[in-house]
Amino acid sequence: MADLDHAAQRPTQRPLANGQTRIDFQTAPARYRHWRLAIDGDIATLFLDVDEKGSLFEGYELKLNSYDLGVDIELADAIERLRFEHPQVRAVVLRSGKPRVFCAGANIRMLAGATHAHKVNFCKFTNETRNGIEDLSEHSGLKSICAINGTAAGGGYELALATDYIMLVDDGAAAVSLPELPLLAVLPGTGGLTRVSDKRKVRRDHADVFCTTEEGVKGKRAVEWRLVDAVVPGSKFDETVAARAKEFAETSPRNGAGQGITLAPLSRSFTADGVEYGAVAVDLQRAERIATVTLRGPTAPPPASAEAMLALGSNFWPLQVARELDDAILHIRINELDVAAIVFKSSGDPTQVLAYEQFLDANQDHWLAREIRHLWKRVLKRIDLTSRSLVTLIEPGSCFAGTLAELPLASDRSYMLIGTRDGDNKPPATITLSGVNFGPYPMPNGITRLGCRFLADPVALDQAKAERGKPLNAENAQSLGLITFALDDIDWDDEVRVFLEERASFSPDALTGLEANLRFAGPETMESKIFARLTAWQNWIFQRPNAIGDEGALKRYGTGQKPVFDTRRV
Amino acid sequence: MADLDHAAQRPTQRPLANGQTRIDFQTAPARYRHWRLAIDGDIATLFLDVDEKGSLFEGYELKLNSYDLGVDIELADAIERLRFEHPQVRAVVLRSGKPRVFCAGANIRMLAGATHAHKVNFCKFTNETRNGIEDLSEHSGLKSICAINGTAAGGGYELALATDYIMLVDDGAAAVSLPELPLLAVLPGTGGLTRVSDKRKVRRDHADVFCTTEEGVKGKRAVEWRLVDAVVPGSKFDETVAARAKEFAETSPRNGAGQGITLAPLSRSFTADGVEYGAVAVDLQRAERIATVTLRGPTAPPPASAEAMLALGSNFWPLQVARELDDAILHIRINELDVAAIVFKSSGDPTQVLAYEQFLDANQDHWLAREIRHLWKRVLKRIDLTSRSLVTLIEPGSCFAGTLAELPLASDRSYMLIGTRDGDNKPPATITLSGVNFGPYPMPNGITRLGCRFLADPVALDQAKAERGKPLNAENAQSLGLITFALDDIDWDDEVRVFLEERASFSPDALTGLEANLRFAGPETMESKIFARLTAWQNWIFQRPNAIGDEGALKRYGTGQKPVFDTRRV
Repeated sequence: MADLDHAAQRPTQRPLANGQTRIDFQTAPARYRHWRLAIDGDIATLFLDVDEKGSLFEGYELKLNSYDLGVDIELADAIERLRFEHPQVRAVVLRSGKPRVFCAGANIRMLAGATHAHKVNFCKFTNETRNGIEDLSEHSGLKSICAINGTAAGGGYELALATDYIMLVDDGAAAVSLPELPLLAVLPGTGGLTRVSDKRKVRRDHADVFCTTEEGVKGKRAVEWRLVDAVVPGSKFDETVAARAKEFAETSPRNGAGQGITLAPLSRSFTADGVEYGAVAVDLQRAERIATVTLRGPTAPPPASAEAMLALGSNFWPLQVARELDDAILHIRINELDVAAIVFKSSGDPTQVLAYEQFLDANQDHWLAREIRHLWKRVLKRIDLTSRSLVTLIEPGSCFAGTLAELPLASDRSYMLIGTRDGDNKPPATITLSGVNFGPYPMPNGITRLGCRFLADPVALDQAKAERGKPLNAENAQSLGLITFALDDIDWDDEVRVFLEERASFSPDALTGLEANLRFAGPETMESKIFARLTAWQNWIFQRPNAIGDEGALKRYGTGQKPVFDTRRV
Repeated sequence: MADLDHAAQRPTQRPLANGQTRIDFQTAPARYRHWRLAIDGDIATLFLDVDEKGSLFEGYELKLNSYDLGVDIELADAIERLRFEHPQVRAVVLRSGKPRVFCAGANIRMLAGATHAHKVNFCKFTNETRNGIEDLSEHSGLKSICAINGTAAGGGYELALATDYIMLVDDGAAAVSLPELPLLAVLPGTGGLTRVSDKRKVRRDHADVFCTTEEGVKGKRAVEWRLVDAVVPGSKFDETVAARAKEFAETSPRNGAGQGITLAPLSRSFTADGVEYGAVAVDLQRAERIATVTLRGPTAPPPASAEAMLALGSNFWPLQVARELDDAILHIRINELDVAAIVFKSSGDPTQVLAYEQFLDANQDHWLAREIRHLWKRVLKRIDLTSRSLVTLIEPGSCFAGTLAELPLASDRSYMLIGTRDGDNKPPATITLSGVNFGPYPMPNGITRLGCRFLADPVALDQAKAERGKPLNAENAQSLGLITFALDDIDWDDEVRVFLEERASFSPDALTGLEANLRFAGPETMESKIFARLTAWQNWIFQRPNAIGDEGALKRYGTGQKPVFDTRRV
């Protein structure tokens, strides 16, 4: 089993292509190598035309519009651009830029050579991107269509599943398929199984046949089995897609008015021990396996009007912090695997933070204010799904108010300092709740963090609600059940240090499983089922020799040798 | 990685104790070595007093009331006896037969030396037993109390969590704990995390502290954090437990009247290729990795009265089939690991089967009729949770009616033969639905199999409902969406053979994950979360070197050496 430690767990990750030293989640349309975003009035088209040579890592080519994380980073970016830069767009069509092939799914050679950690992170991010496409439709009214002109296999079909309407060309060859199980001995884990069962509501025996049939399903049966919404003859494909997109745009509730803003490149500088953004800083204590993420409150009052907010664009403080925080979390997730705990801190004036909340509340019908709140919702969900211990330290001079107060609520534990520190003139720590903590930011399981926290005690939820707008000191926050521990200055350093040391001493895997369970009390949704039922089974399979062993299906794919399976059913 | 195949996946299972060659799920109170069932009027007490030398496998001792599967088989049996043999019992107290220790949980040396398959099967069965305790309370009104007189650690506390009311002695030492993560780098996987978050609704940060604190929580804090319902001084413990049990019995809705029946030992004979029961047969085709389970319809009409049903006791056909089927499924699960697919068949007269359904409907207020339906509900859930491909072959001469019609609905696929077979005078195959298919048998996710099947199409559900009581031939069953494929005699053999061969060729693990996803469309419940979110993460952890490697925590526990962890968070 010592071999298992070293062979299975500590393989060298493939080198990144082009001498890159870290995976960067920032891009922009001008730099896309795989997607092309075209806008025509209120209809956008996203063309997938993968550059075979544009892989994220060395060692494989992205043939047949197959993808790796690099391709999905561009897709995620394009979706954000549609939200913020193109508010006039009401429908988006996803289609292939290549003839007779839509998308062959996740690149198999990439997967076969990836570390377990990369497989897990890759699936998590692609799942978040697809959930974002659904959120865009459900909450921003931007409807999506997938126009499949050829093979949509595995992750290719899973991408289609994230859209509102799937059109398949009827040419006798084009098909949708989920061949992961028969070909690779893994699951369609990018939401595929869950969307087949829970979104498309495909009958379970049909789903069983579909997911075990390598070549997939095409034509009339694909419609009858609810796998696609329409099959269209090749000669009429383009016009039918265009007509449908026009219909979707016409019925979209998206306001569609106004000028977009530009999502400017993030201001970032990477150092040996962290990342410095404008309003966010990441400090790595590598020996202690801690990443401290500090959020800085606004340095100026909110703008005077919605027009002034538009003029600020991506420099508008709530948008800036959300984008920087999102990038910081993604960076830690994929580039800093040894970080055991993320410690959230903040600095600034809580009344200023609340002034921004009031500004956003006052402009809640403005498309940009809404999109900023939706972005925060998604960033907070990403935090919920981050497999690191999450801790918030609420100290003098901090500004955990409104949206920022979601961070202690999203944390596995929070510590709050009572009063002031000896020899320090910063004001005592407070937490201030606002309306935003009671609705706009549901977790993946569909309920708010406070609702989840007080599942046993609706009265406590009401009591917290009654305190909206009031700065709560440590004693009050504790008696309301908003924090885990209130400590005075004398105990603070030791208690926090011992806790973080202890956390770093535990098994990383067991913590991942523990946190994935304890964070999500209460209901499940399709979204949360993807990260629980589907992802957890997929991660198990990703550890099993039948998939990843030398004789396993992932390793043997394309070698001409059949996989050899341990036949025991578990 | 070849080492991984052999070292991790194909270790020799420990020998069973006492020269046993298979694990037997049948027992009876007179043979218990670990539990003692005492009945006093309407209150039962189950004393846990584990025989250290009574382990199921060789190689470990069951110290401190720790348990293995053998201990849990007795508990499951005792719960069934309370249901059927003691209908007058309205409350049950679980307590320890040893001083100052309640239960140390699953035996660690047993776990450390168990195969992956055994760990998974052990957790699944113990989870089913605990769900059964909750079902007994919720649906049969038999309330449960756990009286904890000392340490309740890990699985010991998880057992308490399955009861309605947890009482902890307040002696300065007694505590409840879930030390799995800090001690063993695994999860409290026998429902522990899910019941803490979703049943006890412990606040998530309290749960985080609790589950990472080896020594657990005691006294007042245990009540404040909702971990127990009451702490009681040692001097008053017995009288308080007795008083509480009396209260529970008084408020129990269990009818409490009438004489129980005796659950007679199953009539079974094991051969090299199967098991022959009275109304169930298991035929193993080991080369093809198929187990065919045939259910035989009743050979006599239902009894004339409830009294006559009582007189038949466990020979009453619906009860007999349920018990035999349950034993058959458990036997295949744990003793026949190489079986890829379970094929359900039946033989008999469907009108006779329906006559029994009508009898049970007519006597639905009789405790025994109700308990039989509840037993079928649990057996069918066990089938849903069985990680083998499930197939029903509906052939001439079969009797898939009423309750038995749940088997094709519980299957991943069903095949139905159109008309008769050449040279065979058996009547053409039919399926007949009855009221029992539309409510009494929810799946673990809380909805019926037909409701889950027709999630997309409530009209189809209504159409099926309208056909209750009518024998449906293959064409009708297909047009109603009740079966997967209708085949005529010419195609039958080849189609079924090719399908079963294909199934046996796929990765067993990937099939487990696929089926665990596709079978459970729609809502999740606490019960289904235990088998999805919790179990799937636990199974992943059970594959990870941080737990099971030579330097992992499970292997190093008790050696004096600290585990060495791969520190990467995934």
